[in-house]
Amino acid sequence: MIVELISVGTELLLGNIVNTNAAFLAEQCAALGLSCFYQTVVGDNAERLCETIEKALERSDVLILSGGLGPTQDDITRDMVAKVLGKDLVLDEHSKERIRLFFAGRGQSIPDNNWRQAYKPDGAVVIDNENGTAPGLILSEKGKHIFLLPGPPNELKPMFTEQMMPYLQKLEEAVIFSVTVKLCGIGESQAETDILDLLEGQTNPTMAPYAKTGEVHLRVTAKAVTEGEARRLVQPMVEELKNRFGHKVYTTQEEVTLEQAVAELVRERGWKLATAESCTGGMLAARLTRVPGVSAVFETGLVTYANETKSALLGVKEDTLSAFGAVSPETAREMAEGLAERGGAEVALSITGIAGPDGGSADKPVGLVYIGCRVKDKTVVKECRFGGSREKIRESSVAAALTLARSCILKEKGEK
Amino acid sequence: MIVELISVGTELLLGNIVNTNAAFLAEQCAALGLSCFYQTVVGDNAERLCETIEKALERSDVLILSGGLGPTQDDITRDMVAKVLGKDLVLDEHSKERIRLFFAGRGQSIPDNNWRQAYKPDGAVVIDNENGTAPGLILSEKGKHIFLLPGPPNELKPMFTEQMMPYLQKLEEAVIFSVTVKLCGIGESQAETDILDLLEGQTNPTMAPYAKTGEVHLRVTAKAVTEGEARRLVQPMVEELKNRFGHKVYTTQEEVTLEQAVAELVRERGWKLATAESCTGGMLAARLTRVPGVSAVFETGLVTYANETKSALLGVKEDTLSAFGAVSPETAREMAEGLAERGGAEVALSITGIAGPDGGSADKPVGLVYIGCRVKDKTVVKECRFGGSREKIRESSVAAALTLARSCILKEKGEK
Repeated sequence: MIVELISVGTELLLGNIVNTNAAFLAEQCAALGLSCFYQTVVGDNAERLCETIEKALERSDVLILSGGLGPTQDDITRDMVAKVLGKDLVLDEHSKERIRLFFAGRGQSIPDNNWRQAYKPDGAVVIDNENGTAPGLILSEKGKHIFLLPGPPNELKPMFTEQMMPYLQKLEEAVIFSVTVKLCGIGESQAETDILDLLEGQTNPTMAPYAKTGEVHLRVTAKAVTEGEARRLVQPMVEELKNRFGHKVYTTQEEVTLEQAVAELVRERGWKLATAESCTGGMLAARLTRVPGVSAVFETGLVTYANETKSALLGVKEDTLSAFGAVSPETAREMAEGLAERGGAEVALSITGIAGPDGGSADKPVGLVYIGCRVKDKTVVKECRFGGSREKIRESSVAAALTLARSCILKEKGEK
Repeated sequence: MIVELISVGTELLLGNIVNTNAAFLAEQCAALGLSCFYQTVVGDNAERLCETIEKALERSDVLILSGGLGPTQDDITRDMVAKVLGKDLVLDEHSKERIRLFFAGRGQSIPDNNWRQAYKPDGAVVIDNENGTAPGLILSEKGKHIFLLPGPPNELKPMFTEQMMPYLQKLEEAVIFSVTVKLCGIGESQAETDILDLLEGQTNPTMAPYAKTGEVHLRVTAKAVTEGEARRLVQPMVEELKNRFGHKVYTTQEEVTLEQAVAELVRERGWKLATAESCTGGMLAARLTRVPGVSAVFETGLVTYANETKSALLGVKEDTLSAFGAVSPETAREMAEGLAERGGAEVALSITGIAGPDGGSADKPVGLVYIGCRVKDKTVVKECRFGGSREKIRESSVAAALTLARSCILKEKGEK
């Protein structure tokens, strides 16, 4: 079954709002095993909306339209679907009564134009809206299925998951199952080069690489009649990727992030992790504290943006700063070691570098970053050279610091 | 001029990522006075991508394609545009050299597949990518214009605003001039209520409010034959907004951010600003250090995530913590005052709160945040109650802290 999403609303065309509905619906449809080849955004314009619906009916089996079911004159989705299908709009007494109750319950009088929402294309199944006045609608005609949903996410999401997904499920026999293998410490091109043979001629399961800052995610997806069967198709590929990338795989769980994986390694060992940042200015600590409950392993983060602070808070020697500069392996090392001492943490991470746009020189260009990691009594310093904007360099530095921490912790245990 | 957006990527069709690029590009195009009637998302599929490009060329003057310029096999946008226009792909030596330098700068060897990114449809203008290896491309053919952008937002956004918007501007005879009046310390609905009379029946200039976390941006846009004329149309409206919102206007310069405005107030006074964060875990310091050259005013940031650290680094009394708790006005005050003392900063900002999802209680629910601000010898503590996810609460707290700092600094000078 091929599904197509049509989002109706001029506010989307103007960029006033981000189309989170499309992402939500697409994810749900993928989980149902429906293939989606197109998403279209079109405004509240009769001619263009009709054209879009007609085109979608030619190339897809299931149309999911969202938006344009409101009470105002520019809400025309209901009318245009009826027009394209050659149906009359008929009054739905049930919907009319619900609209009456909706306003009565709020002690409000009913604006006349709200009654438009009680009309439906003849033959449509009405789906009650528990969170608003616009009912959802489902039409099935000549093997095509059209679903109409209200635009507000808080109305659309529950209506779709609770009332429309069961309909869709019946339409599709196949089940989709995906596993994401998440890598750190390797670039997208390198990762892909390592699996070119797997990428070529892949059918079921399929695999797609996604590049994130400092990470590569490999998504393995299989389609089958049962979920168990789909899982069986996915598993060997996941194992193969684990074998090829070894310790570079930090998780195969969709919801686990790199910072979470690092925090978990620290927690398992009953350790603490502390951070000392210069050019990243707190981004590493901020990313670690995205993890709920990270307080079990993270207590202290220092942003030592000035040399004075590096000496005062971390005990970096002024000689070191004057001899080698703030951006040097020596300073990164002293930052990590001073932090480990003072912070009483088994894992001490430091970052010092030149994020730009200014402050670069021939021997120390913008993008030069030193990352220090002390685990127990061993300190490692890594030199990195990043490109891109100030923010990109800072983000890359944070990802590299987490990756270094992870490998140092694993090494300490001789796990790598 | 009619523009059409085509986002290429299977990850969009699967709902793995939200299409923020489309919202960004649509907003920018609207600001340029370009009409956008359709946005399409299509996967990395040759046939369907070609169809989509052909259809768009029929109905629109300007096509903006994003995504599918990467080095991997499934990145085919470049090739399909060439195919539809009947152009050969030719090697661009300049791009090849830039790719070589990109990897050389990182001391990395170049994966073979990256060279694909040095090819362009014959006749295309190459737009350098300052944040990645995929160059942008512009083709003009028979009165139609095609713009190709890389998919990653941190590459797409700067490339579009800095290098492609000037091209687009030239295509449109009318000149569009916008001024964004940026407000802090006021909600969107309040801001809108205050200018309902201005919003009604507006034609030229037009005004659109955009809600950001902790901020409201009012963009005033005029269309005219010359920029001077457009400026003259915009100016009175900007003045009116300044009068209505007074000190809540922190800038009318497009590029100035709230953190920049605060840093500038501190710099003007020859002061320093320091931060002490609990629930935001470094996000405030990270946001301040987005500002290039902020080292002139920002030297020290402390992330005191544990109670012990609050006492050790900031001298928060253990009695205070046990009597009132870490999330209390008393703790926020002692954090700010301890920080001012130790950090030797005239402006000391502290944040302590419950970001959730756990840790809330009846009297201290998730979203309760206290912000302390000491300017010179005066300390103010503000109580906030935020909604939304853990990250949303943290972002709202950072914006509120910057807003409080700004108003305390202005008050200290009796400017408000």
